Amino acid sequence: MNKEKLYVIKIGGNIIDDEQRLEKFLRNFAGLNGHKILVHGGGKLATRLAVQLNIPQQMVEGRRITDAETLKIVTMVYAGLINKQIVAMLQAHGENAIGLCGADGNLIRSEKRKQGDIDYGFVGDVREVNDTLILSLLRQKMPLVIAPITHDGSGLLLNTNADTMAQEMARSMSDHYAVNLVYSFEKKGVLSDIADEESVIPQMTRATYIKYREEGKIFAGMIPKLDNAFAAIESGVERVIIGMAEELDKLVEGMTGTTLMKQ
Amino acid sequence: MNKEKLYVIKIGGNIIDDEQRLEKFLRNFAGLNGHKILVHGGGKLATRLAVQLNIPQQMVEGRRITDAETLKIVTMVYAGLINKQIVAMLQAHGENAIGLCGADGNLIRSEKRKQGDIDYGFVGDVREVNDTLILSLLRQKMPLVIAPITHDGSGLLLNTNADTMAQEMARSMSDHYAVNLVYSFEKKGVLSDIADEESVIPQMTRATYIKYREEGKIFAGMIPKLDNAFAAIESGVERVIIGMAEELDKLVEGMTGTTLMKQ
Repeated sequence: MNKEKLYVIKIGGNIIDDEQRLEKFLRNFAGLNGHKILVHGGGKLATRLAVQLNIPQQMVEGRRITDAETLKIVTMVYAGLINKQIVAMLQAHGENAIGLCGADGNLIRSEKRKQGDIDYGFVGDVREVNDTLILSLLRQKMPLVIAPITHDGSGLLLNTNADTMAQEMARSMSDHYAVNLVYSFEKKGVLSDIADEESVIPQMTRATYIKYREEGKIFAGMIPKLDNAFAAIESGVERVIIGMAEELDKLVEGMTGTTLMKQ
Repeated sequence: MNKEKLYVIKIGGNIIDDEQRLEKFLRNFAGLNGHKILVHGGGKLATRLAVQLNIPQQMVEGRRITDAETLKIVTMVYAGLINKQIVAMLQAHGENAIGLCGADGNLIRSEKRKQGDIDYGFVGDVREVNDTLILSLLRQKMPLVIAPITHDGSGLLLNTNADTMAQEMARSMSDHYAVNLVYSFEKKGVLSDIADEESVIPQMTRATYIKYREEGKIFAGMIPKLDNAFAAIESGVERVIIGMAEELDKLVEGMTGTTLMKQ
């Protein structure tokens, strides 16, 4: 049986911070045929608000340490302002978008990260995705707009990595749809030469990825992302595409960016 | 045909500001049998955040003048923090609640209020309620938690009165359900003597309301609320109940508060 196509698209914070780039991305998103889930990060807005409110922010390896006050801020900014602005903009493009966080309809349940060497605070790791609600909304032709906040089922909201949420939703939906997972950000794709923005690797399988990596051609910062992406493919996601947010229409056609495939 | 019961319940800001009262209210809400919609106001949190961010706030007859910066604040606080905290708390009580604002799924479309003597700024008056999405979620046994932010369909979010949103949703749902509209706040009901908290009028029809009003027994501030409530009843809402949020379980049984009925 041929499965219908579902796009799960993550947009990075640098796009959200730039009104014109966001608008261009959303226009492209609205133009895509098929079922759609958009997972957004937070951008610099949360940090800016925290500074204004004199709440010190601490980042460890690019991750935000989330104390109780910071949790309130990210809930306001991610699940409130950014999520609803994106929904209203998509509605203006004729898309009947619905904005949710992981607590809504028990969409994504997570577990507070255990304190190891670093105490990340109110940060959650994804445990379970509620397929039923997602399927019901997608069948009503409603694109989902997902904010990176989840809950633990005991009343606690938790700050959660948007990349991981996109991947877990893609994986969970691959039983029902031919899922294309898109990581869109400010770069053109996976580069074979970090100094050359044009050195985009157009296609990779696990085998060619290992080869590139052995040749030292993959930028170290991309390795965890690519490992996750290949894990997603090997658990049922049809394709992962990595590239520039404003070129979404070309990305999904494989005309630009890097496409990861099973073989 | 006997319609199923739907509760549309508005909670006032004073309850939201008080964690213990809110928790008691939500426990009662979770215990109610039947379909449920909860519409919440904003409380003092938005004002407090505006003060911290040096955004001057102006109230006219209890309504917030909403400039562009204030719109961002109410979107963050109402649709973000308060909405998601309530959803997470209800999830902890075993209710599969889903939090939405009027932009989500085009749930409530509004129109920016025309500038009259007073420019209210980004304030919207309700124009249309999207029955389809509400029915689909209620049929999935999901209580709706609604933040008082709507959209105009052209990309603009608008601050909207929560009382009016509750009333419009109640009215719109009365084609499908036997709707009980509950206005819950910090008072015990409609009082016949403003100085006596115990002088609750247990039941009112339009006829007895007119009588009380002619006798000067209804507090002036309640008159617009009651006029709206009777308008709702006359357009299909089965019953309107006004009373104390923490007594929700007794309110819906008519054991306390004021019940307005068609006859």
